[in-house]
Amino acid sequence: MERKTFDRTAFFISDGTGITAETFGHSVLAQFDTIKIRQIRIPFIDSIEKADDAIRRINDHGLTEGKRPIIFSTLVNPEINLHMRQANGLFLDLFQTFVDPLEQELETQSNHSIGRSHNISDVENYNRRIEAINFSLAHDDGQTDKDLQRADVILVGVSRSGKTPTSLYLAMQYGIKAANYPLIPEDFERSRLPEVLYAHKEKIFGLTIAAGRLSEIRNERRPGSKYASPENCRYEVNEAETLMRCEGIRWLSTTTKSIEEISTTILQEFGIERSL
Amino acid sequence: MERKTFDRTAFFISDGTGITAETFGHSVLAQFDTIKIRQIRIPFIDSIEKADDAIRRINDHGLTEGKRPIIFSTLVNPEINLHMRQANGLFLDLFQTFVDPLEQELETQSNHSIGRSHNISDVENYNRRIEAINFSLAHDDGQTDKDLQRADVILVGVSRSGKTPTSLYLAMQYGIKAANYPLIPEDFERSRLPEVLYAHKEKIFGLTIAAGRLSEIRNERRPGSKYASPENCRYEVNEAETLMRCEGIRWLSTTTKSIEEISTTILQEFGIERSL
Repeated sequence: MERKTFDRTAFFISDGTGITAETFGHSVLAQFDTIKIRQIRIPFIDSIEKADDAIRRINDHGLTEGKRPIIFSTLVNPEINLHMRQANGLFLDLFQTFVDPLEQELETQSNHSIGRSHNISDVENYNRRIEAINFSLAHDDGQTDKDLQRADVILVGVSRSGKTPTSLYLAMQYGIKAANYPLIPEDFERSRLPEVLYAHKEKIFGLTIAAGRLSEIRNERRPGSKYASPENCRYEVNEAETLMRCEGIRWLSTTTKSIEEISTTILQEFGIERSL
Repeated sequence: MERKTFDRTAFFISDGTGITAETFGHSVLAQFDTIKIRQIRIPFIDSIEKADDAIRRINDHGLTEGKRPIIFSTLVNPEINLHMRQANGLFLDLFQTFVDPLEQELETQSNHSIGRSHNISDVENYNRRIEAINFSLAHDDGQTDKDLQRADVILVGVSRSGKTPTSLYLAMQYGIKAANYPLIPEDFERSRLPEVLYAHKEKIFGLTIAAGRLSEIRNERRPGSKYASPENCRYEVNEAETLMRCEGIRWLSTTTKSIEEISTTILQEFGIERSL
């Protein structure tokens, strides 16, 4: 039944996780939004046998749908790459296409190793990432003031403005230690940030959100509550923005932004260019 | 000073977050690991003015380093794309390279819209993702048995085997509700899983880890403790693996795997192909 709702199938194939092929293919296919394309990732194709399995799946989809599938490949192994080209589909070779001009430009051969971007080889990076996740979890929602001097970023904003997902994303993807503190009615009454934050003011970044959207989000959690009411959301957002403006805190509105866009903006604001 | 340690610079440029360009470029450049390449992402290039700023930065790096930078571009806007080509670097046009054959294959024009893969347009996906993050946070480390029937996956394993980062990654990247439960000495003595899990056995997936690596990781947190000692780690790992074997639980070793590799394997084991 489900197959009927798709016009075509795209496969993301790789010797590694296939995340690179999927991220990239997903972006490119989003440019063709009039066509409904099923997207399937086939990771860890590290033998001719697994390649044969993948070829069978691809050909089967092509036959069933009457249109040949699109294949985004980041296969690095030359033998498996060559073998996969037997599949009956449009083969888009992400790696080889750009490895050739890069070999020329860099005047060196590529090493044809697999999955370098997502393996554990860089233990230091890996440890930093895990440490950042643990830090961000421990410092979620103002749980503790301990070790706040170790934070790279401290997010503030009203409840459900996007602080927790953003903190975790920054930790997970960039190894950034991100604490977050809710701004609550007590803060508004005093017209002050939580006192402990004043010592770390240069690390603070604010998130705000349109009151209407906030009300929607809060209603999912506590339907019909005062907490979720449009009036209360308007009050909190208003007060939080006034407070941040008075304190000279940089902020952005998360209303129409994805976690990736929020995180990228924060990295840019703090001039952080490192990645994992 | 720092510049001296790099042979060359690569830029990831985009009208959107640049995450696609960075993920992809990072993978390709990993194929050239004899050359030390500084990697800089310049996101949100959505005007000719911002393109000019980017061109200046790129040319400046080229002059300073005596080697022209490499530019991975996912610019979608044709005017800005054309303008950026004035930069003095090797311009690798990720989108256009594959959009052309896709337009032919799909017999349709691409829509040249920006950042479709990371914008909030799909509110349903976004909500699912946030809900999954909240679920995984609430169900981290066996904190609650409530709503366990709503979990997509339940990870089990000894403390520090990788359950928390994997649960959060699955939630963040795939909108998968992942609970996790630690396996502790009390479980080993009874030779039973935590009782509440038996009703959800088909959702359980185990993580294990080499005792030596586990001891290293635990020593970072509690140096010299019994908890971190090689003997205790050997004991716990051994018991956990025996228990999982007896209960017929699927598991993998996280010792040499990244969070991405662990998560991809779990998706594969559960036959989950959806992505956000």
